Amino acid sequence: MNVFRQSEKRVDGLSEKQLTSYRAWLQYQPILNQDYISDIKAQFSKISVADENEIISSCITELSVALKEMVGFTPVVDYQHTHKVGLHLTINKALPEEAYQLNESQKVLRLSGGSSRALLYGTFHLLRLIQRQAQLSDLNITEQPKNPVRMINHWDDMDGSVERGYAGRSFFYEDYQFIQDRQRIQDYARLLSSVGINALTINNVNVHQKETELITDTYLKEVSQTSDIFNQYGITMYLSINYAAPIEIGGLNTADPLDEGVKRFWQDTVANVYQAVPRLGGFLVKADSENRPGPFTYGRNHAEGANMLAEAIKPFGGKVIWRCFVYDCKQDWRDRKTDRARAAYDHFMPLDGQFADNVILQIKNGPMDFQVREPVSPLIGGLAKTNQFLEFQIAQEYLGQQRHLVYLIPQWKEVLEFDTYAKGEGTKVKDVVSGEVFNNKVAGIVAVSNVGRDYNWTGHTFAQLNLYGYGRLIWNPDLTAEEIALEWIEQTFGLNKSVVDAIGAMVMPSWQAYENYTSPLGIGWMVNVNHHYGPNIDGYEYMAWGTYHFADRDGLGVDRTIKSGTGYIGQYHEANSKYYEELESCPDELLLFFHHVPYTYQLKSGKTVIQHIYDTHFKGVEQVEAMIKIWNEVSEHIDEQRHHDVKARLEHQLWSAKEWRDIINTYFYRKSGIADQHNRTIY
Amino acid sequence: MNVFRQSEKRVDGLSEKQLTSYRAWLQYQPILNQDYISDIKAQFSKISVADENEIISSCITELSVALKEMVGFTPVVDYQHTHKVGLHLTINKALPEEAYQLNESQKVLRLSGGSSRALLYGTFHLLRLIQRQAQLSDLNITEQPKNPVRMINHWDDMDGSVERGYAGRSFFYEDYQFIQDRQRIQDYARLLSSVGINALTINNVNVHQKETELITDTYLKEVSQTSDIFNQYGITMYLSINYAAPIEIGGLNTADPLDEGVKRFWQDTVANVYQAVPRLGGFLVKADSENRPGPFTYGRNHAEGANMLAEAIKPFGGKVIWRCFVYDCKQDWRDRKTDRARAAYDHFMPLDGQFADNVILQIKNGPMDFQVREPVSPLIGGLAKTNQFLEFQIAQEYLGQQRHLVYLIPQWKEVLEFDTYAKGEGTKVKDVVSGEVFNNKVAGIVAVSNVGRDYNWTGHTFAQLNLYGYGRLIWNPDLTAEEIALEWIEQTFGLNKSVVDAIGAMVMPSWQAYENYTSPLGIGWMVNVNHHYGPNIDGYEYMAWGTYHFADRDGLGVDRTIKSGTGYIGQYHEANSKYYEELESCPDELLLFFHHVPYTYQLKSGKTVIQHIYDTHFKGVEQVEAMIKIWNEVSEHIDEQRHHDVKARLEHQLWSAKEWRDIINTYFYRKSGIADQHNRTIY
Repeated sequence: MNVFRQSEKRVDGLSEKQLTSYRAWLQYQPILNQDYISDIKAQFSKISVADENEIISSCITELSVALKEMVGFTPVVDYQHTHKVGLHLTINKALPEEAYQLNESQKVLRLSGGSSRALLYGTFHLLRLIQRQAQLSDLNITEQPKNPVRMINHWDDMDGSVERGYAGRSFFYEDYQFIQDRQRIQDYARLLSSVGINALTINNVNVHQKETELITDTYLKEVSQTSDIFNQYGITMYLSINYAAPIEIGGLNTADPLDEGVKRFWQDTVANVYQAVPRLGGFLVKADSENRPGPFTYGRNHAEGANMLAEAIKPFGGKVIWRCFVYDCKQDWRDRKTDRARAAYDHFMPLDGQFADNVILQIKNGPMDFQVREPVSPLIGGLAKTNQFLEFQIAQEYLGQQRHLVYLIPQWKEVLEFDTYAKGEGTKVKDVVSGEVFNNKVAGIVAVSNVGRDYNWTGHTFAQLNLYGYGRLIWNPDLTAEEIALEWIEQTFGLNKSVVDAIGAMVMPSWQAYENYTSPLGIGWMVNVNHHYGPNIDGYEYMAWGTYHFADRDGLGVDRTIKSGTGYIGQYHEANSKYYEELESCPDELLLFFHHVPYTYQLKSGKTVIQHIYDTHFKGVEQVEAMIKIWNEVSEHIDEQRHHDVKARLEHQLWSAKEWRDIINTYFYRKSGIADQHNRTIY
Repeated sequence: MNVFRQSEKRVDGLSEKQLTSYRAWLQYQPILNQDYISDIKAQFSKISVADENEIISSCITELSVALKEMVGFTPVVDYQHTHKVGLHLTINKALPEEAYQLNESQKVLRLSGGSSRALLYGTFHLLRLIQRQAQLSDLNITEQPKNPVRMINHWDDMDGSVERGYAGRSFFYEDYQFIQDRQRIQDYARLLSSVGINALTINNVNVHQKETELITDTYLKEVSQTSDIFNQYGITMYLSINYAAPIEIGGLNTADPLDEGVKRFWQDTVANVYQAVPRLGGFLVKADSENRPGPFTYGRNHAEGANMLAEAIKPFGGKVIWRCFVYDCKQDWRDRKTDRARAAYDHFMPLDGQFADNVILQIKNGPMDFQVREPVSPLIGGLAKTNQFLEFQIAQEYLGQQRHLVYLIPQWKEVLEFDTYAKGEGTKVKDVVSGEVFNNKVAGIVAVSNVGRDYNWTGHTFAQLNLYGYGRLIWNPDLTAEEIALEWIEQTFGLNKSVVDAIGAMVMPSWQAYENYTSPLGIGWMVNVNHHYGPNIDGYEYMAWGTYHFADRDGLGVDRTIKSGTGYIGQYHEANSKYYEELESCPDELLLFFHHVPYTYQLKSGKTVIQHIYDTHFKGVEQVEAMIKIWNEVSEHIDEQRHHDVKARLEHQLWSAKEWRDIINTYFYRKSGIADQHNRTIY
């Protein structure tokens, strides 16, 4: 019954060495501790289950495969639920739907959940404990996810490419067809479910011509088959749609949301979609953004645009997720009054309360676009009467594109712990987006995927940690970045303490290191245009994208103050707007996001801005050198393939970090004329 | 017998309006002056020809079609050569091969030429005169081209794209096949021959996988058919080859020029090629350049590399043209000692005298790469014992990509009139590259084509002038830019004086205008990476391409002096090196190419560098505005299609020129902190 392992071998013809990468954190490596094996064998001698369904079947399969691999035996499964020992799986309707409890006493393990899905989460919890060789005796755990919706967005196109994808091509599509071998998708569903993901979209928010047809009979059969695979792991699938579909596939000459023909088109289309894919979660829409069509074309606002779709999909229990990434991408760089950072708030705050209750606004964590450092979007904590999702990006578009080791959880934790002051002090982002603060009907967190057809899923082996950590963090935002990293390291690389400590020491400072050698003090960008990789200080400075640093010979930064700047700061609640407005309180790390200051301005750290730039850039490179040293020291304890893969990327990262260091330092030295206090080499 | 006009209509399904653009300078518009028509009818009543061959047949066809169009009659052709009146075509072996004489007396027109090819040039000369309604009575003209080889290089790829092509796709290839309808090619041959072009290559110097097979039986039949079309117009065809062909198509594991197997491969290949295409001119080779393979891979020098090919092709009378565009394209931007400008000279001067006599070195006009302003390559006038071609670029890669109106002849004339001092004062480039100074066995000029499948051939209608002018200029470098423009305008747009004056006033200052609003004082570059269009001051500043401006808060420019710089200036003969080395003599327009100076440095014009930058950038935009004004004023005298095409491009040019102006001015204002003396708007 070892289907998982056998099937793995089939996937894309991977070699045994590559399979170790492919297994990610579900390694299920054989355990060598005989005492521990004996305990597990006793605790799992039998598995009793109360119900039978596809999700519970996934629990059983995962347990069977994992135990066979780790401790070398396959438990007996008892669907009559008569055994007195072993593992008992039961559904307990008194529990919240996604909650589960794990108890052990006298070799009887009880896993009860509010639903089959909850049992699956509990199953993976158990396997996580076993992989880490935790003692299960006297176990007493209750778990419930903080966020109701925990979602992944794929930016996969049907030609097989992945927009902002850094881990190979799509494993959903190639050449405008669904890929027939679906083993990859199933293993992906296992990975997602193991960290509590319960929703995903499978196509890019930029919906091109062929992808528009995903909601037609051309593709619905395979959409349905794909949905079935995810449902088996408790994951609800959504589709990204093209707002202009009424024109492009409906033969209409308008997509005006108030047009009767358009409404009818969507009603008919939705009915047809749900007939084929009854468990579809709904639609994700990027409208009126970066040249995508939307309601603006017809003089309608976003509420009118979204509500029309929401009404069509409501009879089927569907949701409409509407992205707030709306700004003028054809701005004149000469115009210093227009501020892209303001755009989402300016567009959507006036509509608060006007959206239907099955519409959710999807809001990027910052007001710009997934930079290494941004303030939190003021829409979060601003919108009080509208369902909302917080959007992160696991794909490292601006953070080294999965060639650089950057552990993202520390960044996301800062976002989640940010105090919006929406209802006074203590109104943290994590409590707003979970729906608790405003009692939203739908709430949660979504993130852009970082996986592709590479044999290790994520290009950089360590980028697996960001996918793992995303799931764990949004399940429980109170987990620390260290705890999450430790979980992942032990499951992925085993329990050897020197390895665990080494990898911990590599990942923990990695976000800070990346920030150190890239754009300073919250200013962001300074990357090459279009592909967003590598330094180009003026890359976006004279373009239409609204992303400027305004560096001159005297200083740099964007004045977003209320007093003299774009007024963006005024979008925050008062406590925050005061905090950012005043130079005295504005935190160093966001200084240049909010203020234009001289190079000689003294930071709270005591350094001048220019010396801070030099120091952090030299330090960032040293941090990468330190990572490489650590990694080389543990080579003997890590399988050759993964060690080599990571090493090659680290060496590239070092080269790239030096480019960043030298270009940034040279640029600002040439501009400021101020020498480094330590006389290090600047070109 | 009006095949030309009928066939034109077939080409790519062009409309009648588009045909006017397509005809370029061979308009052959009906003449309305009845006296002139009577004269022409008398002078061309009969055409007597002494010989019959394909080229003379092209003369007759062209005359017949043109006269029918212009004056409405078709002359009688007498191959027995018995008529006493009309036009007499005779070959006169006493004349140099490409020379011709035109005489008229008492209604007898005599065109005698050293070859059929010369007669064709004389024929087009006659038609040029008739289009301009010149009097033919008492005509007494002797013409001989200055340059023996007058060549065009195509950078067409067989997938149908054109590298650095700005006028649509290739009309030679599509989807790795030759295009079957060859009317385009024949009309192109007519255009080329009408301005004296006698050689061309039909594929990109970057020879990719499929193009490598052009010298195999896969394509040789069609190569031969294409060659036949050009031969009919006196044009010898060459092929660009891949130096790694012995590996890629020969099945060898080396392309080492001293390897016996490699030599045998090339001997066999050449024999096979010449069997299929006996009139092939030879090969063009880009080796060891921008990641192309070459002899360096095997520790051989370029003479060894080229001579091996030359030996193989010599029995067939073939030539090997070897590009000198060799430099390190992976330079570290931090390394200020390495100077790309030095590369061609450093590579090839030590080999002077070592190349076989059927090898020709092809040298770009400047040491960098077709910038708006460069000094002349010191290799020209340096090499004393090696055949050489001067290379221009008609395609406006760095000069507005045929969306900007830029008349290139004034630039090329400066190059040709440049005194190299190779044999003391007065050793001008035009006399070196013609072969006269060093008595080269082969000599001439070559240029990268600017044509494509657009209905007007060149994207911008006015870019036709650069193709026309190129041919005319290299035939006779003593023609002025004004004379050439006038010829082209009258043939292309007719004799209306207001139109002729207007277009003259647009084209003559256009190169200067482009220089004004783009990179200043000879520094070059400052364009977007890869596609080379539009301003990006730091675009190449921190890259590996060896193209830097080194602007800091105090000044800019590249120190290429002997005294303190890269020593590039030392590659010139003494008179020139002294001239460039000393700030007192170095000309303003090349100042920043040779020297790094402060923004406050005073030019010979009396302005500071920074004020010069501001002034020229404001002026450049005003010059474009003036062009638009002129063009709008003559709209009623120009056909709608061409007027609209040009107008749309001029409007784009104005937008683009403003981007250049504002970005350059803003960049240098932010860096220098020095205000414009006239307080104009800088952002």
